[in-house]
Amino acid sequence: MIGKKALQELEAKVGKDKVFADREYLLSYSYDATGLEFLPDAVVFAESGEDVARVMAVCRSHGLPLTARGAGVGYTGGALAVRGGVVLVFTRMNRILRLERESLLVVVEPGVITSDLQAVAEKAGLFYPPDPASLKTSTIGGNIAENAGGPRCFKYGVTGNYVLGLEAYLMSGEKVRLGSETIKNVAGYDLKSLLIGSEGTLAVVTQATLRLLPLPPRRLLFRVDFAALADGALFVQRIIQNHVQPSVLEFMDRSSLQAVYAYQGLALDDRVRAAVLVEIDGSPAEVAEREALFERQVAAAGALDRQRAATAAEQETLWATRRNISPAIARLKPKKINEDIVVPGGRIPEMVAFIDGLAAEFNLCIVLFGHFGDGNIHTNLMVDPDDAAEMSRAGVVLDRIFRRVVELGGTISGEHGIGLSKKPFMRYQFSPLELELFRSIKKVFDPDNLLNPGKIF
Amino acid sequence: MIGKKALQELEAKVGKDKVFADREYLLSYSYDATGLEFLPDAVVFAESGEDVARVMAVCRSHGLPLTARGAGVGYTGGALAVRGGVVLVFTRMNRILRLERESLLVVVEPGVITSDLQAVAEKAGLFYPPDPASLKTSTIGGNIAENAGGPRCFKYGVTGNYVLGLEAYLMSGEKVRLGSETIKNVAGYDLKSLLIGSEGTLAVVTQATLRLLPLPPRRLLFRVDFAALADGALFVQRIIQNHVQPSVLEFMDRSSLQAVYAYQGLALDDRVRAAVLVEIDGSPAEVAEREALFERQVAAAGALDRQRAATAAEQETLWATRRNISPAIARLKPKKINEDIVVPGGRIPEMVAFIDGLAAEFNLCIVLFGHFGDGNIHTNLMVDPDDAAEMSRAGVVLDRIFRRVVELGGTISGEHGIGLSKKPFMRYQFSPLELELFRSIKKVFDPDNLLNPGKIF
Repeated sequence: MIGKKALQELEAKVGKDKVFADREYLLSYSYDATGLEFLPDAVVFAESGEDVARVMAVCRSHGLPLTARGAGVGYTGGALAVRGGVVLVFTRMNRILRLERESLLVVVEPGVITSDLQAVAEKAGLFYPPDPASLKTSTIGGNIAENAGGPRCFKYGVTGNYVLGLEAYLMSGEKVRLGSETIKNVAGYDLKSLLIGSEGTLAVVTQATLRLLPLPPRRLLFRVDFAALADGALFVQRIIQNHVQPSVLEFMDRSSLQAVYAYQGLALDDRVRAAVLVEIDGSPAEVAEREALFERQVAAAGALDRQRAATAAEQETLWATRRNISPAIARLKPKKINEDIVVPGGRIPEMVAFIDGLAAEFNLCIVLFGHFGDGNIHTNLMVDPDDAAEMSRAGVVLDRIFRRVVELGGTISGEHGIGLSKKPFMRYQFSPLELELFRSIKKVFDPDNLLNPGKIF
Repeated sequence: MIGKKALQELEAKVGKDKVFADREYLLSYSYDATGLEFLPDAVVFAESGEDVARVMAVCRSHGLPLTARGAGVGYTGGALAVRGGVVLVFTRMNRILRLERESLLVVVEPGVITSDLQAVAEKAGLFYPPDPASLKTSTIGGNIAENAGGPRCFKYGVTGNYVLGLEAYLMSGEKVRLGSETIKNVAGYDLKSLLIGSEGTLAVVTQATLRLLPLPPRRLLFRVDFAALADGALFVQRIIQNHVQPSVLEFMDRSSLQAVYAYQGLALDDRVRAAVLVEIDGSPAEVAEREALFERQVAAAGALDRQRAATAAEQETLWATRRNISPAIARLKPKKINEDIVVPGGRIPEMVAFIDGLAAEFNLCIVLFGHFGDGNIHTNLMVDPDDAAEMSRAGVVLDRIFRRVVELGGTISGEHGIGLSKKPFMRYQFSPLELELFRSIKKVFDPDNLLNPGKIF
């Protein structure tokens, strides 16, 4: 519990209109997409970097944990105040400060919503590629904290690839500027990259300079259906190797499709075992040429069906199937254990077969979909928390999946981060020495462990 | 001076055929492209990660500094043993261990020469884009240590963008594996990026997993000449904004061109004040389409001349002008103070005008060329070390240039690193607090300051 004195200090330092400690507020900022809940002691809405420094001063003098929060839509608990303290919300710091067309960059506050930034960039004929599924609600600050990905990251890279510079506050209340406004920069250690994906445990970001690209003038979207999962996986590899260079290469397995079709009240062709979404973008001639290369691969792959969406409305219909997977599969079972493993592209068929084998062996419903272009497989174990035997089997399966991922040169998280929910699996990917290095670095930035404590390791 | 005991221990631990302490060897590994010289106490040729750990053990027990070295062609002294000790050379660890076409990756030892890797990738129909000017001699280990760039980095990014994972040894002799074999990875802190560009001060890299791309099937190279520097700079911006998406956007000023033409025994058209090299790569239709867009910009820009090189031989001729700038301008004056500042793309005209103004005001010969696409301006102050007045003026000019670069949101080094020669300028880009953070991180990795001491800060 926060003391009355600390609360009064917060109110005095940043203003009463930014500080809340009544239960309804605390509840509203106690959860995220994990379904877990941790009640903070106070919620503060930052309106400037100075506010951040002031809140830090109060937290330091009272030993209160500080957890930064954007939209609170993370999948691993990164924004949850697991040890109470202050939740510092950034939704009021949502200004786009400066867009420079000539330098292809934009300077934003962390509370800007990802799709708002994309819309502003598009109006200027520019393009901000990272597109996490939560883009209509998630904030740039949250995207940076978790190094968010998305379908287009296959061609364009993840959030971190678009962060040129950061302004951030250390827990000491001191401001640092990391990176620059340029793509190349090899002066000093790359602390900017160290902060990206550090889930708010090292510093609090208050401003970001982001790289933009020229907007590709044309986009085409395709869906290709296959009678076997392996055919779809092989198709994905051939697409990559044959210069189709798609901007999106998404994969949906039979269970995903069945769930979505049921959700949408549609009937799924019995023969379909997998579907691949392929987006091609670029100039008109580029898109036409790549479409021809793509069609050659479709013909060679013996696909069951191929749909082509040229208009925005048609594309939205195809995308709807993919975007509805999460709500649709949520109806299959009371709980979804949602992992986002990644393996090298060439290992996808092997990994998918391995997971399919486990599902059969342990009689579990495992739904696979995701970004097969970059090997990022969203692996959903659908379980009933009241079924102890099933939960136990799920535990064994998860364990085997993570071990296999690491053996294949992959990683336990491609875009969701570690947060709270993946902490137990860190030891599969990292040696005790490597984990100790993380802790030592944490100590350099936050010696009293006040910044989002209890996360990652 | 190294003690006899330490030398014997080195020989006993790694083998006599890998350890050298005679003066001729020490001399051969005492310099780099800076022209500075520091004699090491011993030179060891590593043949495995275990060798590295063994050498580290000897260095630790005798308090000897350890400096890793690739080809020794760096511009800032990163590979120089400024405090003596052991220079650990990686030229014998030059194996390409594994190339996976399906996963678009290659695993290499640090001593592999950059152009050798490129050749091996090309044979497999793949492409390793980073292309520092030194690519025919520089090693991947050195490229990683300095996060090397090059002309194609404008479209394709720098070395760090192609490093998926690293195996490295801490000064404690313990091995760590950082990153993974996948593009996406948000598990734990990004220590891989922290090591990239850290100039061998944090750990010693013994293996790298690098990302490859499909090889673009076609390339075209153009040179466009302008009657004014500003016209060339504007042309570069228009090329970027109008979807030409070149793979290379290089710039040469009048002084560069004059020097190269004299060097090659050719006459330069009096009217030419700047030249831009533009490379377009991709599929045939893509290249054709972009060439048309490019020609429209050439016509609009009022260029003096435009040369087109379609064959490899023709392209080599155009490239020769650019590649000969360094040796050519070296003949202008006894010493070249070689900086590689970067400013945001939109600020190039402002920065170039600023430097031109300084050259006139301080009566200095300043030669500009480089990667204008990404704002990376190689700024060469041509001076005579025996002319004290000129050296003093150069000092003032350098100081002003670096201050202006930072004001414009840029960085003091785009691809050469800080090493020894840019240490004095770090304070322009970094606050005392930021420099202190660097030192604290250094201490986490190397508490006794044995790893390449005296560099960066």
